[in-house]
Amino acid sequence: MIAILKPGATEEQISHLSQWLQRMNLKVHLSEGQDVTVMSLIGDTSRVDMELLGSLDIVERVQRVSEPYKQANRKFHPRDSIIDCGGVRIGGGYFAMIAGPCSIETEEQIIGVAQAVKESGADILRGGAFKPRTSPYAFQGLGADGLKLLLKAKEATGMPIVTELMNINHLDLFADVDVIQIGARNMQNFDLLKEIGRTNKPILLKRGLANSLQELLMSAEYIMSEGNENVILCERGIRTFETATRNTLDLSAVSQLHEMTHLPVVVDPSHATGKSALVPSMACAAVACGADGIMIEVHNNPAKALCDGAQSLTPAQFDTVSRRVHKIREAVR
Amino acid sequence: MIAILKPGATEEQISHLSQWLQRMNLKVHLSEGQDVTVMSLIGDTSRVDMELLGSLDIVERVQRVSEPYKQANRKFHPRDSIIDCGGVRIGGGYFAMIAGPCSIETEEQIIGVAQAVKESGADILRGGAFKPRTSPYAFQGLGADGLKLLLKAKEATGMPIVTELMNINHLDLFADVDVIQIGARNMQNFDLLKEIGRTNKPILLKRGLANSLQELLMSAEYIMSEGNENVILCERGIRTFETATRNTLDLSAVSQLHEMTHLPVVVDPSHATGKSALVPSMACAAVACGADGIMIEVHNNPAKALCDGAQSLTPAQFDTVSRRVHKIREAVR
Amino acid sequence: MIAILKPGATEEQISHLSQWLQRMNLKVHLSEGQDVTVMSLIGDTSRVDMELLGSLDIVERVQRVSEPYKQANRKFHPRDSIIDCGGVRIGGGYFAMIAGPCSIETEEQIIGVAQAVKESGADILRGGAFKPRTSPYAFQGLGADGLKLLLKAKEATGMPIVTELMNINHLDLFADVDVIQIGARNMQNFDLLKEIGRTNKPILLKRGLANSLQELLMSAEYIMSEGNENVILCERGIRTFETATRNTLDLSAVSQLHEMTHLPVVVDPSHATGKSALVPSMACAAVACGADGIMIEVHNNPAKALCDGAQSLTPAQFDTVSRRVHKIREAVR
Amino acid sequence: MIAILKPGATEEQISHLSQWLQRMNLKVHLSEGQDVTVMSLIGDTSRVDMELLGSLDIVERVQRVSEPYKQANRKFHPRDSIIDCGGVRIGGGYFAMIAGPCSIETEEQIIGVAQAVKESGADILRGGAFKPRTSPYAFQGLGADGLKLLLKAKEATGMPIVTELMNINHLDLFADVDVIQIGARNMQNFDLLKEIGRTNKPILLKRGLANSLQELLMSAEYIMSEGNENVILCERGIRTFETATRNTLDLSAVSQLHEMTHLPVVVDPSHATGKSALVPSMACAAVACGADGIMIEVHNNPAKALCDGAQSLTPAQFDTVSRRVHKIREAVR
Repeated sequence: MIAILKPGATEEQISHLSQWLQRMNLKVHLSEGQDVTVMSLIGDTSRVDMELLGSLDIVERVQRVSEPYKQANRKFHPRDSIIDCGGVRIGGGYFAMIAGPCSIETEEQIIGVAQAVKESGADILRGGAFKPRTSPYAFQGLGADGLKLLLKAKEATGMPIVTELMNINHLDLFADVDVIQIGARNMQNFDLLKEIGRTNKPILLKRGLANSLQELLMSAEYIMSEGNENVILCERGIRTFETATRNTLDLSAVSQLHEMTHLPVVVDPSHATGKSALVPSMACAAVACGADGIMIEVHNNPAKALCDGAQSLTPAQFDTVSRRVHKIREAVR
Repeated sequence: MIAILKPGATEEQISHLSQWLQRMNLKVHLSEGQDVTVMSLIGDTSRVDMELLGSLDIVERVQRVSEPYKQANRKFHPRDSIIDCGGVRIGGGYFAMIAGPCSIETEEQIIGVAQAVKESGADILRGGAFKPRTSPYAFQGLGADGLKLLLKAKEATGMPIVTELMNINHLDLFADVDVIQIGARNMQNFDLLKEIGRTNKPILLKRGLANSLQELLMSAEYIMSEGNENVILCERGIRTFETATRNTLDLSAVSQLHEMTHLPVVVDPSHATGKSALVPSMACAAVACGADGIMIEVHNNPAKALCDGAQSLTPAQFDTVSRRVHKIREAVR
Repeated sequence: MIAILKPGATEEQISHLSQWLQRMNLKVHLSEGQDVTVMSLIGDTSRVDMELLGSLDIVERVQRVSEPYKQANRKFHPRDSIIDCGGVRIGGGYFAMIAGPCSIETEEQIIGVAQAVKESGADILRGGAFKPRTSPYAFQGLGADGLKLLLKAKEATGMPIVTELMNINHLDLFADVDVIQIGARNMQNFDLLKEIGRTNKPILLKRGLANSLQELLMSAEYIMSEGNENVILCERGIRTFETATRNTLDLSAVSQLHEMTHLPVVVDPSHATGKSALVPSMACAAVACGADGIMIEVHNNPAKALCDGAQSLTPAQFDTVSRRVHKIREAVR
Repeated sequence: MIAILKPGATEEQISHLSQWLQRMNLKVHLSEGQDVTVMSLIGDTSRVDMELLGSLDIVERVQRVSEPYKQANRKFHPRDSIIDCGGVRIGGGYFAMIAGPCSIETEEQIIGVAQAVKESGADILRGGAFKPRTSPYAFQGLGADGLKLLLKAKEATGMPIVTELMNINHLDLFADVDVIQIGARNMQNFDLLKEIGRTNKPILLKRGLANSLQELLMSAEYIMSEGNENVILCERGIRTFETATRNTLDLSAVSQLHEMTHLPVVVDPSHATGKSALVPSMACAAVACGADGIMIEVHNNPAKALCDGAQSLTPAQFDTVSRRVHKIREAVR
């Protein structure tokens, strides 16, 4: 951590600050320039409050030089993490295709889609039971009944399942769910993160619409610091000024995260673009830049889907995407 | 609601779509141009799924022409709402000054700050007991113990209090809290919104860092649709590309919200800017453009505050701001 | 174009507005709902001033339903445009690899890089002579002398060349340049766009850092409306809140633009990410999602490059990228 | 400037880098921590290429600790600059009201508006002759003829005038213009900035839609480094995800710029919001937070304005705003 001191700081003030920092077991180095004096803090600065330090009279600005995330940091854990999701592995060279409908509607629908996507090469089944919706008047998912239907589809096809948890009090219902999804809007619901950190289930953690990659890793850190290291990160588009697509899919996040962390990174092109016509090309792009998995919405009758129909593929379209994705996987190896 | 149809749509397809919409009790008008045909849907479209409609083969795009929020909409409720916060009114010409420390630390601290800000004209005391922090390693607030200290300060000064609720299971602890704050990160924690919608307490709803004004009103709608109409909106800065300030305070949101809704709008310049030096001028600007209240962080020893010290004013600085704010209130009347 | 009228609009006002619009050769259809009346304008609305219409007393909001770009619009020109760049074709299935240094420095450097990238499969040579730099104190390029060195490299290798034009008065110097690049900062330098619209040279038009895809097409329209239809669009990253990468590469723009326009779309991963470590994966992703070309910075000694060294590849790295790109091209065909 | 070195850097590499930097007349201090080594560069680092340094093998990241702007920097010029605009002073306690139509249309119009706004207290007349428009099909201003009409209005009223220069070749036409405006889209048209830097006219430099405050100051620096120190900065809204207003007016930029620079800061609420209903409140807010001037669009018949009518006030509305603004000026003194 670096503190840039204000031009007028007196020697006494600087020495006072140094002593205070040294009492926190930090070493302090000073580099005095003409216009600016820089104080370097050496040691474990992860607990130093940057804003507090920055608020002191003689301090102009504070900058971190080491990352505030520890357990998620590739520097301290150079090898890729491989997460076991009910028998399907993700990360460290293992690639998984996650597919299924936005919302679970009927037994026939979820089992039908599950069988279709499995045949086309999907590894994990997704389906929403509890749905976060901007409007209180929109369909909110089948809830606990939806979960039961999803478990039936798991039984019928043998596929592991992933579905979203929104409420800390619903955790018991997720006992047989293989992967718990935390949605973009809950990426900083810290109490929820701590709670799932106390389970040992794989967590699919989606990046918030306006959250930086560092914040995403800090949220992973919340889960990991409670003991659960099975975190899979998911890029699903960020909010920008562009309105032609629903969000802006940030694919450079995949490579950038691979440099920052050992955790696997999955891409969700369906929610990012909000348009089924763009999903196949974005799925291909995600694979080409090294994503450890992709997550695609598939519906057996997109025109009648109760939510997010505009971004779902038909099983036939998914089959085509799946073939292309595997060809690209081979090309980039 | 308007559906713009694709150039190649056949008469049969259009008639089919019209019938489907009419079965949803909507009237359908067609305007056929050279390049484009526009279908207007008339009636209660708040339950029509725009994305579903937009996903149909013959539909190019769907646009809302009426707002999806109803109870928060000024069109259906032209008079300003006035919210009673433990005896202090906000909205409809009533202005309130909310002040207090970021985090509650000790009994001495919270009572000391409360007395100081009351003397300088503050109407409501704020103080954080449960703190949402990006890092799991940062101070997370005193929790339930902090709430008790805040209640002591309420008793000692007679000021109503506002504090943040992060966890649906903590609601019982808030029985004697006058105003429940929902933080920016929880603006779309829909289960939490529904839960507090079933209370009758005033809710201070903060705008999310990347949420549009319409989304803010949809979140207010979640609370109101459960029966609780006591919602106060709070602008606290949005996330943009600019890094000179922590966030970008969107003051035009104040006037724009006043056009869209009858709910009062409060501004929090402390969190928006993250710099105490900018708080006084932004507080003055907020009042000048018609905010129904301002919320300011005050600490008796900012340099030692456990969190967000950089953005807190001293009681003396707050006193100066308070005087200026009142002068401007008179000037803009 | 759709005008949404305010609830209180009288019949007389509406009839008055209708007549005014009809005098502009537009047909007017009215759809009256309970809360809202929608006026559809049919005919050539490209010259109607939306903001003027929106400013009228009885108008609440105006929305376009057809696109304001005509010559760039795929609807009126369904087949892909193929642009001939000094013998190299881009678009309509033709793919081009553009490579070269950020800045031209010496004859030896530019010819050396040109030969290297040609050997690795590059089709067009890039190199900056006039450099837009944020700081007046930074190296601004060799200018006219740099152009001469670039022309020598063209002669030595037979490769067509692309370089940036910043100043309307430099156009004469570009007589032997094959493709004129318009940088992101000049995307809305309208006088410059009109001027190059009067040449018949291929134009590589880079998207501005905060410009929507529609605005990019409107800038293409400026060039095309002056007679020059040889426009190649270039996605090079947009400005968002994320700071881990220099900009956010918006790859969904490639597919989205392919739906909106017949013009070819090229991707520049070097400027978008600002980090050489991310360039290979983003180049692969661009090809996988259908880009008509990629543009990559290559320097024979990146550690000594006078500008933007951090984002340049070595010739050896470029060679590896080139091979991968061609494998992916085959996989996605 | 600070260079953070990678964990694996050898002593030899570090010593090699130190020597290279010392040859650039910089002193080098090293602070070695467990995970990270920090190299502080002391001396004139304004010419060091951060990206080049950052691209070196052993360097992880480079951070500036002193600002790259010098002449605009308040640190080296603590007193407020006061700019004389044809007899009207701006900055250092002097406040100016700039008003007039978006586009100059007729002699009658511009003189009429000029007289009206002068009577209501405006100090400087604005009016557009050359108009930057997103669409090539929209009205582009009267050009040189418009300038002549504006000069007539100057003569008729005695008011200094400000108008936008878009094209480097039009500079001669601006001989009698008091203040040259550089529009948001040209904030980084560096050749244009250098050219006006060689005049001694006051420059009203508008912030680009996606430009940081530091970039705004770097553009001011371009003008100042050529010898012209008469720069007035103008905040006119930035581009964000919010669509309820045309742009997001960043009023905290006013106070933040006042800390960073000695140059005056003017606010343009008309272009920022794009809605006349929001202009009065944003004008009041701008004054309350210390803006050195405001710039407001006024049209004698907004409903018929050829461009940007939606954001113009009538003279009567301007008169009301002007009174309120002066009251607030007194309140905040």
